[in-house]
Amino acid sequence: MEKIIIRQYKKPKLSSPVLIGGLPGIGNVGKIAADYLIDKFKMEKLADMFSQYFPPQVFIDEEGVARLVRNSIYYKKFRGKQDLLVLVGDFQGTTQEGQYEVSYAILEMLKQFGLSGVYTLGGYSTGKIVDEPRVLGAVTDPAMIEKLKESGVVFPKGEPGGGIVGSAGVILGMSSEMFSIGGACLMGETSGYFADPKGAREVVKVLKNLLNLDINLEDLDERTKQIEQITGRMQEEAQTRAQPKEDLGYFG
Amino acid sequence: MEKIIIRQYKKPKLSSPVLIGGLPGIGNVGKIAADYLIDKFKMEKLADMFSQYFPPQVFIDEEGVARLVRNSIYYKKFRGKQDLLVLVGDFQGTTQEGQYEVSYAILEMLKQFGLSGVYTLGGYSTGKIVDEPRVLGAVTDPAMIEKLKESGVVFPKGEPGGGIVGSAGVILGMSSEMFSIGGACLMGETSGYFADPKGAREVVKVLKNLLNLDINLEDLDERTKQIEQITGRMQEEAQTRAQPKEDLGYFG
Amino acid sequence: MEKIIIRQYKKPKLSSPVLIGGLPGIGNVGKIAADYLIDKFKMEKLADMFSQYFPPQVFIDEEGVARLVRNSIYYKKFRGKQDLLVLVGDFQGTTQEGQYEVSYAILEMLKQFGLSGVYTLGGYSTGKIVDEPRVLGAVTDPAMIEKLKESGVVFPKGEPGGGIVGSAGVILGMSSEMFSIGGACLMGETSGYFADPKGAREVVKVLKNLLNLDINLEDLDERTKQIEQITGRMQEEAQTRAQPKEDLGYFG
Amino acid sequence: MEKIIIRQYKKPKLSSPVLIGGLPGIGNVGKIAADYLIDKFKMEKLADMFSQYFPPQVFIDEEGVARLVRNSIYYKKFRGKQDLLVLVGDFQGTTQEGQYEVSYAILEMLKQFGLSGVYTLGGYSTGKIVDEPRVLGAVTDPAMIEKLKESGVVFPKGEPGGGIVGSAGVILGMSSEMFSIGGACLMGETSGYFADPKGAREVVKVLKNLLNLDINLEDLDERTKQIEQITGRMQEEAQTRAQPKEDLGYFG
Repeated sequence: MEKIIIRQYKKPKLSSPVLIGGLPGIGNVGKIAADYLIDKFKMEKLADMFSQYFPPQVFIDEEGVARLVRNSIYYKKFRGKQDLLVLVGDFQGTTQEGQYEVSYAILEMLKQFGLSGVYTLGGYSTGKIVDEPRVLGAVTDPAMIEKLKESGVVFPKGEPGGGIVGSAGVILGMSSEMFSIGGACLMGETSGYFADPKGAREVVKVLKNLLNLDINLEDLDERTKQIEQITGRMQEEAQTRAQPKEDLGYFG
Repeated sequence: MEKIIIRQYKKPKLSSPVLIGGLPGIGNVGKIAADYLIDKFKMEKLADMFSQYFPPQVFIDEEGVARLVRNSIYYKKFRGKQDLLVLVGDFQGTTQEGQYEVSYAILEMLKQFGLSGVYTLGGYSTGKIVDEPRVLGAVTDPAMIEKLKESGVVFPKGEPGGGIVGSAGVILGMSSEMFSIGGACLMGETSGYFADPKGAREVVKVLKNLLNLDINLEDLDERTKQIEQITGRMQEEAQTRAQPKEDLGYFG
Repeated sequence: MEKIIIRQYKKPKLSSPVLIGGLPGIGNVGKIAADYLIDKFKMEKLADMFSQYFPPQVFIDEEGVARLVRNSIYYKKFRGKQDLLVLVGDFQGTTQEGQYEVSYAILEMLKQFGLSGVYTLGGYSTGKIVDEPRVLGAVTDPAMIEKLKESGVVFPKGEPGGGIVGSAGVILGMSSEMFSIGGACLMGETSGYFADPKGAREVVKVLKNLLNLDINLEDLDERTKQIEQITGRMQEEAQTRAQPKEDLGYFG
Repeated sequence: MEKIIIRQYKKPKLSSPVLIGGLPGIGNVGKIAADYLIDKFKMEKLADMFSQYFPPQVFIDEEGVARLVRNSIYYKKFRGKQDLLVLVGDFQGTTQEGQYEVSYAILEMLKQFGLSGVYTLGGYSTGKIVDEPRVLGAVTDPAMIEKLKESGVVFPKGEPGGGIVGSAGVILGMSSEMFSIGGACLMGETSGYFADPKGAREVVKVLKNLLNLDINLEDLDERTKQIEQITGRMQEEAQTRAQPKEDLGYFG
């Protein structure tokens, strides 16, 4: 079999689309943010991707229906501004080779649409619960930094220290090196202990500013409040018990 | 060498055959059930499959004769109803890539016979000895659920929670996604602590109902009784000692 | 690069040669025996094999000269009887894929010489020091058993229980299944705790009988005596301390 | 995607260039030495190499700019003597296959320049802080030993005992076996506990002698002094606490 099988369902004409990548990772920040965009914009599915770089597994829904694990790409056409492509999925490639191959295949496939930029989303693990999560940035081109700062992104010196490992890093690095498409990685701070809508909310807020998206954050506000109630007690306990790790690597 | 080498011995004309997959897994439920079908129906060997996705190993029989490890497919022609194909073997593919490649190669090879459906068999680990094992189901098409329920399969909400990992999952998912063949996974409950004819018996009973097979369950009844005597004491001990795990993932 | 690179130095005309495989393994029994044949018969090098299935490593000799790790094949022409090919090397393939690919490449390369049989050598781990090591056998064809018994090989029922894992198993299994060449695996008993000339001596003795080789065992006798003096005390200690493992798997 | 992607930026005419390989390894001795040559000679970048044999990762600089991890080759033309090529990078290939493939790809690419020799640099782990680190050597051709000794290299019998594992070994072994280019591995002694300019200094000194390089060692002297002040106390502690390992393998 081919190592990656892409099923493309649609052939839309897209106008300078931006790709937003939100695969599972730390705190699932990227995935929550990307799923939120797909839901709010009622995006249409463009393609499914199956691969032996994903676990050999089916998921089963509430009814009992099985579906092979996959990555999927959704699209949304907007009037008068750049269109949107969003990558989501059940898994990142599970091996080093898989990370490169899956990321490359996605970019190679989307080349036909004339991508104008790539934003990969992820969580930035702080090891403790954060009251007001920041969104850290990394760019492929220093000229982008100012615009990102205006959209609420911070660039603390030397963070993340270990670079960005995983699909958020390699999609970004490849889009720049091999496809000459600039981009940025947006990392929402999260404790990393659970799926975290709070970090995701901040990432969506940045995207809203950056891409001038007409999107409200109400549902994420709501989920964030629920999480805060749950974590209120956890936080108190965590602050007395846990030793905060200061210089964590990052897995997007 | 080719990564998978298939030796096909026969070219039978089969009528809408159903594939039943029973590779080794939890409690060897699928393998015991599949071997039972091959034995009872005196099925003929269709093909052997060797692969570098299996361990580099020979097994040695009682006499001292070595044979390279493999998967094998058997067939049986029935009058007036769908024919049967059964997949058994020494191992599942041992890597993620191997799981996909082996499963794909089996389906690709069997395409020539016009498969009408795929049933993968497995064990569902309960972590404790079960008096009356149920058969859990997962389907590729919700329209199949009713017929499976009539054959004795249950569909408890949200089980198995982690989906189905391994050949029972990936053969099912691939047959649907890549070969447009519907199917189901039948998982017999088992403690998972030993090779378990009791769970296998229930799986064969479901197949008997579902495919209208003319097969008695006497030998499995007999082996089940033997196992029950052995496990009677184990069960008592286990119930006092072991902490039952409620929400186990599943490896078919 | 190609995954396996074979450098063949000679093109001898060989008469129904027998391949003897002695790669490193338990107690290095197979390797010691194979090296002994090469040394005693002053065999000539036929080919070197380099591969990414071996560790990325050079060995350095006493002088300081580095050489890339490899497998090598030697040959010896005899008058009036079958010629000899011996496989030795620094490593077995280190992965499952590597075991299959390396074994296949060796057999594929030697096909040109019209192999008449394959004997793989290995150690059979007893977990304790053995006074009079036996040579256990496994064959590809039951018709070979009698001849092997006459040469001193034993076939205890159900041993080795786990089959034969590694190159000794997979070369044997492949030669039979994929190249239609019969053969046997000869496993000299060894504690498995150190490189063991004693088990190797018994394996060479069997080969001498089986292939009617004109070879003396004096040097192996000598090395065996030295080892026995060293292990005399170890044996006493081991017998009081160690719990002998009865049903070990085998790695050739 | 291709497993290794080489981007060659220049097509210089080089005169019998020598390749010096300094990828990360024990004490980063090879990398520090190689980076020092690139810096001091203001070498120009010849090529970048990206690969799925490297971690799926971007590094981020002080500003916040991400770059995909890579290996790079630099060159320098000298008047009237052999030119210089230096290999540096973020990582060695991370798998066995990767080590072979990356090393092969580098040599294959540089074949066009008519390499006259290959020197791989590495650290030799002593497990304790060394006052006057030696540079150990291994060669592909015994005829080179004398010249290396004159340049300050030592060849202690039987060291390194486990051979040379990793890129320093496999580039050397391959250049000799597969490209017929002679060479040596130069291993600066280092404790292996931290990035060690002291061992690197000795390696650069040997290269200066060997290749008649017009290079001063002042900056390395300076960094060595700084490290010595830091390690002065560590050394005292280490000598009382740590059990020196005498016969360590080597990872270049």
